[in-house]
Amino acid sequence: MTLRVLGVDPGLTRCGIGVVDIEKNRRATMVAVGVVGTSAELTLDKRLLVIAQAIDEWLDLHTPDVVAVERVFSQMNVSTVMGVAQASGVVIVAAARRGIPVALHTPSEVKAAVTGSGTSNKDAVTKLVTKILRLDAPPKPADAADALALALTHAWRAGSGMGSAGAANGSGGLTPAQKAWADAEAKARRKR
Amino acid sequence: MTLRVLGVDPGLTRCGIGVVDIEKNRRATMVAVGVVGTSAELTLDKRLLVIAQAIDEWLDLHTPDVVAVERVFSQMNVSTVMGVAQASGVVIVAAARRGIPVALHTPSEVKAAVTGSGTSNKDAVTKLVTKILRLDAPPKPADAADALALALTHAWRAGSGMGSAGAANGSGGLTPAQKAWADAEAKARRKR
Repeated sequence: MTLRVLGVDPGLTRCGIGVVDIEKNRRATMVAVGVVGTSAELTLDKRLLVIAQAIDEWLDLHTPDVVAVERVFSQMNVSTVMGVAQASGVVIVAAARRGIPVALHTPSEVKAAVTGSGTSNKDAVTKLVTKILRLDAPPKPADAADALALALTHAWRAGSGMGSAGAANGSGGLTPAQKAWADAEAKARRKR
Repeated sequence: MTLRVLGVDPGLTRCGIGVVDIEKNRRATMVAVGVVGTSAELTLDKRLLVIAQAIDEWLDLHTPDVVAVERVFSQMNVSTVMGVAQASGVVIVAAARRGIPVALHTPSEVKAAVTGSGTSNKDAVTKLVTKILRLDAPPKPADAADALALALTHAWRAGSGMGSAGAANGSGGLTPAQKAWADAEAKARRKR
Protein backbone atom coordinates (compact mmCIF):
# COMPACT_ATOMS: atom_id res chain seq x y z
CA MET A 1 0.00 0.00 0.00
CA THR A 2 1.06 3.56 -0.54
CA LEU A 3 0.32 6.76 1.33
CA ARG A 4 -0.34 9.78 -0.86
CA VAL A 5 0.70 13.05 0.75
CA LEU A 6 0.05 16.51 -0.66
CA GLY A 7 2.57 18.95 0.78
CA VAL A 8 2.04 22.70 0.76
CA ASP A 9 4.57 25.44 1.43
CA PRO A 10 2.06 28.26 1.96
CA GLY A 11 2.54 31.85 0.86
CA LEU A 12 0.64 34.67 -0.80
CA THR A 13 3.24 35.35 -3.50
CA ARG A 14 4.05 31.69 -4.10
CA CYS A 15 2.46 28.52 -2.74
CA GLY A 16 4.50 25.42 -3.43
CA ILE A 17 2.44 22.24 -3.89
CA GLY A 18 3.84 18.73 -4.19
CA VAL A 19 2.22 15.31 -4.26
CA VAL A 20 4.20 12.21 -3.32
CA ASP A 21 3.30 8.53 -3.02
CA ILE A 22 5.22 6.77 -0.27
CA GLU A 23 5.37 3.03 0.17
CA LYS A 24 5.66 1.53 3.61
CA ASN A 25 9.33 0.71 2.93
CA ARG A 26 9.79 4.53 2.63
CA ARG A 27 10.34 4.46 -1.14
CA ALA A 28 8.84 7.68 -2.47
CA THR A 29 7.62 8.64 -5.93
CA MET A 30 6.67 12.10 -7.09
CA VAL A 31 3.15 12.35 -8.51
CA ALA A 32 3.03 16.06 -9.26
CA VAL A 33 4.63 19.33 -8.30
CA GLY A 34 3.72 22.94 -8.95
CA VAL A 35 3.58 26.48 -7.73
CA VAL A 36 0.62 28.83 -7.49
CA GLY A 37 1.61 32.45 -7.63
CA THR A 38 -0.50 35.52 -7.02
CA SER A 39 0.29 39.11 -7.88
CA ALA A 40 0.76 41.69 -5.14
CA GLU A 41 -1.35 43.98 -7.35
CA LEU A 42 -4.43 41.91 -6.57
CA THR A 43 -6.44 42.62 -3.42
CA LEU A 44 -5.92 40.21 -0.52
CA ASP A 45 -9.31 38.58 -1.01
CA LYS A 46 -8.58 37.85 -4.68
CA ARG A 47 -5.11 36.48 -3.85
CA LEU A 48 -6.51 34.12 -1.21
CA LEU A 49 -9.28 33.08 -3.61
CA VAL A 50 -6.75 32.13 -6.31
CA ILE A 51 -4.91 30.00 -3.75
CA ALA A 52 -8.14 28.40 -2.48
CA GLN A 53 -9.23 27.50 -6.00
CA ALA A 54 -5.84 26.03 -6.87
CA ILE A 55 -5.77 23.90 -3.72
CA ASP A 56 -9.31 22.72 -4.44
CA GLU A 57 -8.21 21.61 -7.90
CA TRP A 58 -5.15 19.78 -6.59
CA LEU A 59 -7.15 18.02 -3.87
CA ASP A 60 -9.86 16.95 -6.33
CA LEU A 61 -7.32 15.77 -8.89
CA HIS A 62 -4.91 13.90 -6.62
CA THR A 63 -7.18 12.88 -3.68
CA PRO A 64 -4.35 12.68 -1.13
CA ASP A 65 -4.64 10.66 2.10
CA VAL A 66 -3.06 13.48 4.09
CA VAL A 67 -2.20 17.13 3.56
CA ALA A 68 1.07 18.34 5.12
CA VAL A 69 1.46 22.08 5.61
CA GLU A 70 4.47 24.03 6.78
CA ARG A 71 3.89 25.33 10.28
CA VAL A 72 3.97 29.11 10.24
CA PHE A 73 6.40 30.78 12.59
CA SER A 74 6.17 34.22 14.06
CA GLN A 75 9.92 34.57 13.78
CA MET A 76 9.38 35.22 10.08
CA ASN A 77 9.46 38.65 8.50
CA VAL A 78 6.56 40.56 10.06
CA SER A 79 5.31 41.91 6.74
CA THR A 80 4.99 38.46 5.18
CA VAL A 81 3.98 36.27 8.12
CA MET A 82 0.33 37.38 8.10
CA GLY A 83 -0.08 36.50 4.44
CA VAL A 84 1.57 33.13 4.98
CA ALA A 85 -0.71 32.41 7.94
CA GLN A 86 -3.81 33.47 5.99
CA ALA A 87 -2.81 31.29 3.03
CA SER A 88 -2.17 28.35 5.34
CA GLY A 89 -5.61 28.78 6.91
CA VAL A 90 -7.17 28.61 3.46
CA VAL A 91 -5.21 25.45 2.59
CA ILE A 92 -6.03 23.74 5.88
CA VAL A 93 -9.77 24.42 5.53
CA ALA A 94 -9.79 23.13 1.95
CA ALA A 95 -8.48 19.80 3.25
CA ALA A 96 -10.77 19.81 6.30
CA ARG A 97 -13.83 20.36 4.09
CA ARG A 98 -12.98 17.09 2.34
CA GLY A 99 -12.31 15.23 5.57
CA ILE A 100 -8.64 14.88 4.67
CA PRO A 101 -6.37 14.94 7.76
CA VAL A 102 -3.94 17.84 8.00
CA ALA A 103 -0.51 17.72 9.58
CA LEU A 104 1.81 20.61 10.32
CA HIS A 105 5.60 20.40 10.26
CA THR A 106 8.19 23.00 11.11
CA PRO A 107 10.94 23.92 8.64
CA SER A 108 13.53 22.35 10.94
CA GLU A 109 11.55 19.10 11.11
CA VAL A 110 11.54 19.04 7.32
CA LYS A 111 15.28 19.71 7.08
CA ALA A 112 16.00 17.05 9.68
CA ALA A 113 13.80 14.46 7.98
CA VAL A 114 15.18 15.02 4.49
CA THR A 115 18.84 15.87 5.10
CA GLY A 116 19.44 14.47 8.59
CA SER A 117 20.14 17.92 10.02
CA GLY A 118 17.63 20.51 11.22
CA THR A 119 19.97 23.34 10.28
CA SER A 120 20.64 22.44 6.63
CA ASN A 121 20.17 25.15 4.03
CA LYS A 122 17.53 25.19 1.29
CA ASP A 123 19.98 23.99 -1.37
CA ALA A 124 20.70 20.86 0.62
CA VAL A 125 16.98 20.15 0.96
CA THR A 126 16.39 20.62 -2.78
CA LYS A 127 19.36 18.38 -3.60
CA LEU A 128 18.17 15.56 -1.36
CA VAL A 129 14.55 15.86 -2.57
CA THR A 130 15.81 15.53 -6.15
CA LYS A 131 17.81 12.44 -5.22
CA ILE A 132 15.15 10.78 -3.04
CA LEU A 133 12.47 11.20 -5.73
CA ARG A 134 14.88 10.20 -8.53
CA LEU A 135 14.16 13.40 -10.48
CA ASP A 136 16.13 14.42 -13.56
CA ALA A 137 16.45 18.01 -12.35
CA PRO A 138 15.85 19.91 -9.09
CA PRO A 139 12.26 21.12 -8.72
CA LYS A 140 12.06 24.89 -9.10
CA PRO A 141 11.35 27.32 -7.53
CA ALA A 142 12.46 26.42 -4.00
CA ASP A 143 8.83 26.52 -2.82
CA ALA A 144 8.07 23.54 -5.06
CA ALA A 145 10.98 21.56 -3.63
CA ASP A 146 9.90 22.56 -0.11
CA ALA A 147 6.39 21.26 -0.73
CA LEU A 148 7.80 17.88 -1.84
CA ALA A 149 10.12 17.85 1.19
CA LEU A 150 7.12 18.49 3.45
CA ALA A 151 5.25 15.56 1.92
CA LEU A 152 8.25 13.27 2.40
CA THR A 153 8.75 14.47 5.96
CA HIS A 154 5.17 13.81 6.81
CA ALA A 155 5.16 10.28 5.48
CA TRP A 156 8.40 9.38 7.21
CA ARG A 157 7.33 10.85 10.54
CA ALA A 158 3.80 9.50 10.28
CA GLY A 159 4.33 6.65 12.68
CA SER A 160 6.04 8.75 15.32
CA GLY A 161 2.99 10.68 16.45
CA MET A 162 4.90 13.95 16.42
CA GLY A 163 4.54 17.13 14.48
CA SER A 164 0.94 16.73 13.45
CA ALA A 165 -1.84 19.28 13.84
CA GLY A 166 -3.40 16.90 16.31
CA ALA A 167 -0.36 16.62 18.55
CA ALA A 168 0.24 20.35 18.36
CA ASN A 169 -3.24 21.03 19.63
CA GLY A 170 -3.08 18.55 22.43
CA SER A 171 -5.74 16.16 21.15
CA GLY A 172 -5.52 12.62 22.41
CA GLY A 173 -5.59 9.37 20.46
CA LEU A 174 -4.27 9.00 16.93
CA THR A 175 -2.61 11.93 15.23
CA PRO A 176 -4.06 12.77 11.80
CA ALA A 177 -0.95 11.14 10.32
CA GLN A 178 -1.41 7.94 12.29
CA LYS A 179 -5.08 7.93 11.43
CA ALA A 180 -4.27 8.39 7.75
CA TRP A 181 -1.94 5.39 7.83
CA ALA A 182 -4.54 3.34 9.67
CA ASP A 183 -7.30 4.39 7.26
CA ALA A 184 -5.11 3.80 4.22
CA GLU A 185 -4.13 0.37 5.52
CA ALA A 186 -7.75 -0.50 6.21
CA LYS A 187 -8.71 0.65 2.72
CA ALA A 188 -5.89 -1.38 1.17
CA ARG A 189 -7.01 -4.46 3.09
CA ARG A 190 -10.56 -4.06 1.84
CA LYS A 191 -9.41 -3.73 -1.77
CA ARG A 192 -7.00 -6.66 -1.98
CA MET B 1 -30.91 52.40 -0.13
CA THR B 2 -29.07 50.52 2.57
CA LEU B 3 -25.65 48.92 2.64
CA ARG B 4 -25.52 45.60 4.47
CA VAL B 5 -22.14 44.93 6.08
CA LEU B 6 -21.10 41.71 7.78
CA GLY B 7 -18.30 42.41 10.25
CA VAL B 8 -15.98 39.72 11.57
CA ASP B 9 -13.61 39.90 14.51
CA PRO B 10 -11.59 36.80 13.64
CA GLY B 11 -10.14 34.36 16.13
CA LEU B 12 -9.77 30.63 16.69
CA THR B 13 -11.29 30.58 20.17
CA ARG B 14 -14.01 33.10 19.37
CA CYS B 15 -15.03 34.73 16.08
CA GLY B 16 -17.40 37.64 16.53
CA ILE B 17 -19.87 38.12 13.67
CA GLY B 18 -22.24 41.05 13.28
CA VAL B 19 -24.52 42.17 10.47
CA VAL B 20 -25.62 45.79 10.17
CA ASP B 21 -27.76 47.66 7.64
CA ILE B 22 -26.62 51.23 7.12
CA GLU B 23 -28.61 53.88 5.33
CA LYS B 24 -26.85 56.59 3.39
CA ASN B 25 -27.70 59.09 6.14
CA ARG B 26 -25.52 56.86 8.41
CA ARG B 27 -28.45 55.52 10.40
CA ALA B 28 -27.55 51.93 11.31
CA THR B 29 -29.70 48.98 12.29
CA MET B 30 -28.47 45.68 13.65
CA VAL B 31 -29.62 42.66 11.64
CA ALA B 32 -27.89 39.90 13.58
CA VAL B 33 -24.99 39.30 15.93
CA GLY B 34 -23.28 36.17 17.16
CA VAL B 35 -20.11 34.42 18.17
CA VAL B 36 -18.62 31.20 16.84
CA GLY B 37 -16.40 29.49 19.35
CA THR B 38 -14.11 26.52 18.84
CA SER B 39 -12.49 24.36 21.49
CA ALA B 40 -8.71 24.30 21.87
CA GLU B 41 -9.12 20.53 22.24
CA LEU B 42 -9.99 20.24 18.57
CA THR B 43 -7.22 20.00 15.97
CA LEU B 44 -6.44 23.16 14.03
CA ASP B 45 -8.05 21.85 10.85
CA LYS B 46 -11.32 21.07 12.65
CA ARG B 47 -11.34 24.47 14.36
CA LEU B 48 -10.85 26.29 11.06
CA LEU B 49 -13.53 24.10 9.45
CA VAL B 50 -16.07 25.05 12.14
CA ILE B 51 -15.31 28.72 11.49
CA ALA B 52 -15.53 28.27 7.70
CA GLN B 53 -18.89 26.53 7.94
CA ALA B 54 -20.29 29.18 10.29
CA ILE B 55 -19.18 32.00 7.99
CA ASP B 56 -20.69 30.19 5.01
CA GLU B 57 -24.01 29.99 6.84
CA TRP B 58 -23.96 33.67 7.83
CA LEU B 59 -23.07 34.76 4.29
CA ASP B 60 -25.79 32.60 2.76
CA LEU B 61 -28.40 33.76 5.28
CA HIS B 62 -27.66 37.49 5.28
CA THR B 63 -26.14 38.05 1.80
CA PRO B 64 -24.12 41.14 2.80
CA ASP B 65 -22.91 43.70 0.25
CA VAL B 66 -19.50 43.84 1.92
CA VAL B 67 -17.56 41.84 4.50
CA ALA B 68 -15.40 43.85 6.91
CA VAL B 69 -12.65 41.96 8.74
CA GLU B 70 -10.34 43.18 11.47
CA ARG B 71 -6.84 43.62 10.11
CA VAL B 72 -4.48 41.27 11.93
CA PHE B 73 -1.49 42.83 13.56
CA SER B 74 1.82 41.23 14.34
CA GLN B 75 1.99 43.24 17.54
CA MET B 76 -0.50 40.78 19.00
CA ASN B 77 0.47 37.96 21.33
CA VAL B 78 2.69 35.65 19.30
CA SER B 79 0.91 32.49 20.37
CA THR B 80 -2.49 33.74 19.20
CA VAL B 81 -1.65 35.83 16.15
CA MET B 82 -1.20 32.83 13.85
CA GLY B 83 -4.61 31.43 14.70
CA VAL B 84 -6.20 34.83 14.19
CA ALA B 85 -4.50 35.22 10.82
CA GLN B 86 -5.52 31.71 9.74
CA ALA B 87 -9.12 32.33 10.79
CA SER B 88 -9.15 35.66 8.93
CA GLY B 89 -7.85 33.94 5.79
CA VAL B 90 -10.72 31.48 5.99
CA VAL B 91 -13.27 34.28 6.43
CA ILE B 92 -11.83 36.36 3.57
CA VAL B 93 -11.91 33.43 1.14
CA ALA B 94 -15.50 32.58 2.07
CA ALA B 95 -16.51 36.09 0.99
CA ALA B 96 -14.27 36.04 -2.09
CA ARG B 97 -15.82 32.75 -3.26
CA ARG B 98 -19.19 34.54 -3.36
CA GLY B 99 -17.81 37.62 -5.10
CA ILE B 100 -18.49 39.72 -2.01
CA PRO B 101 -15.93 42.53 -1.57
CA VAL B 102 -13.77 42.35 1.55
CA ALA B 103 -12.41 45.31 3.48
CA LEU B 104 -9.90 45.30 6.31
CA HIS B 105 -9.85 47.77 9.17
CA THR B 106 -7.42 48.14 12.03
CA PRO B 107 -8.60 48.17 15.65
CA SER B 108 -7.66 51.85 15.94
CA GLU B 109 -9.67 52.72 12.82
CA VAL B 110 -12.66 51.00 14.43
CA LYS B 111 -12.20 52.82 17.72
CA ALA B 112 -11.81 56.15 15.94
CA ALA B 113 -14.89 55.62 13.77
CA VAL B 114 -17.16 54.51 16.61
CA THR B 115 -15.95 56.56 19.57
CA GLY B 116 -14.08 59.41 17.88
CA SER B 117 -10.75 58.38 19.40
CA GLY B 118 -8.33 55.70 18.13
CA THR B 119 -7.16 54.98 21.65
CA SER B 120 -10.52 54.29 23.34
CA ASN B 121 -10.88 51.12 25.35
CA LYS B 122 -13.12 48.17 24.52
CA ASP B 123 -15.79 49.23 27.00
CA ALA B 124 -16.19 52.56 25.25
CA VAL B 125 -16.59 50.81 21.90
CA THR B 126 -19.22 48.43 23.28
CA LYS B 127 -21.09 51.32 24.90
CA LEU B 128 -21.19 53.36 21.71
CA VAL B 129 -22.16 50.35 19.55
CA THR B 130 -25.06 49.70 21.92
CA LYS B 131 -26.17 53.32 21.65
CA ILE B 132 -25.67 53.69 17.88
CA LEU B 133 -27.64 50.52 17.16
CA ARG B 134 -30.32 51.37 19.76
CA LEU B 135 -29.85 48.01 21.51
CA ASP B 136 -31.50 47.19 24.82
CA ALA B 137 -28.28 45.71 26.22
CA PRO B 138 -24.60 45.66 25.24
CA PRO B 139 -23.77 42.80 22.84
CA LYS B 140 -21.68 40.15 24.61
CA PRO B 141 -18.99 38.87 24.50
CA ALA B 142 -16.75 41.76 23.43
CA ASP B 143 -15.98 39.95 20.15
CA ALA B 144 -19.64 40.32 19.14
CA ALA B 145 -19.61 44.05 19.86
CA ASP B 146 -16.31 44.36 17.98
CA ALA B 147 -17.82 42.69 14.93
CA LEU B 148 -20.69 45.18 14.92
CA ALA B 149 -18.24 48.05 15.42
CA LEU B 150 -16.26 46.80 12.41
CA ALA B 151 -19.38 46.75 10.26
CA LEU B 152 -20.29 50.31 11.33
CA THR B 153 -16.74 51.49 10.74
CA HIS B 154 -16.71 50.06 7.30
CA ALA B 155 -19.96 51.65 6.22
CA TRP B 156 -19.00 55.07 7.56
CA ARG B 157 -15.54 54.98 6.00
CA ALA B 158 -16.79 53.49 2.74
CA GLY B 159 -16.67 56.72 0.81
CA SER B 160 -13.20 57.67 2.00
CA GLY B 161 -11.28 55.08 0.01
CA MET B 162 -9.15 54.21 3.01
CA GLY B 163 -8.66 51.10 5.03
CA SER B 164 -9.94 48.61 2.50
CA ALA B 165 -8.22 45.44 1.35
CA GLY B 166 -7.87 47.13 -2.01
CA ALA B 167 -6.13 50.21 -0.75
CA ALA B 168 -3.89 48.16 1.51
CA ASN B 169 -2.66 46.14 -1.44
CA GLY B 170 -2.06 49.10 -3.69
CA SER B 171 -4.66 48.27 -6.31
CA GLY B 172 -5.95 51.18 -8.32
CA GLY B 173 -9.53 52.19 -9.03
CA LEU B 174 -12.39 51.69 -6.61
CA THR B 175 -11.75 50.10 -3.25
CA PRO B 176 -13.99 47.12 -2.47
CA ALA B 177 -15.92 49.43 -0.15
CA GLN B 178 -16.43 52.03 -2.83
CA LYS B 179 -17.38 49.37 -5.31
CA ALA B 180 -19.91 47.93 -2.86
CA TRP B 181 -21.54 51.33 -2.48
CA ALA B 182 -21.58 51.83 -6.23
CA ASP B 183 -23.00 48.35 -6.84
CA ALA B 184 -25.57 48.70 -4.08
CA GLU B 185 -26.63 52.07 -5.43
CA ALA B 186 -26.95 50.67 -8.95
CA LYS B 187 -28.99 47.77 -7.60
CA ALA B 188 -31.25 50.11 -5.66
CA ARG B 189 -31.77 52.25 -8.77
CA ARG B 190 -32.77 49.21 -10.79
CA LYS B 191 -35.25 48.10 -8.12
CA ARG B 192 -37.07 51.37 -7.50
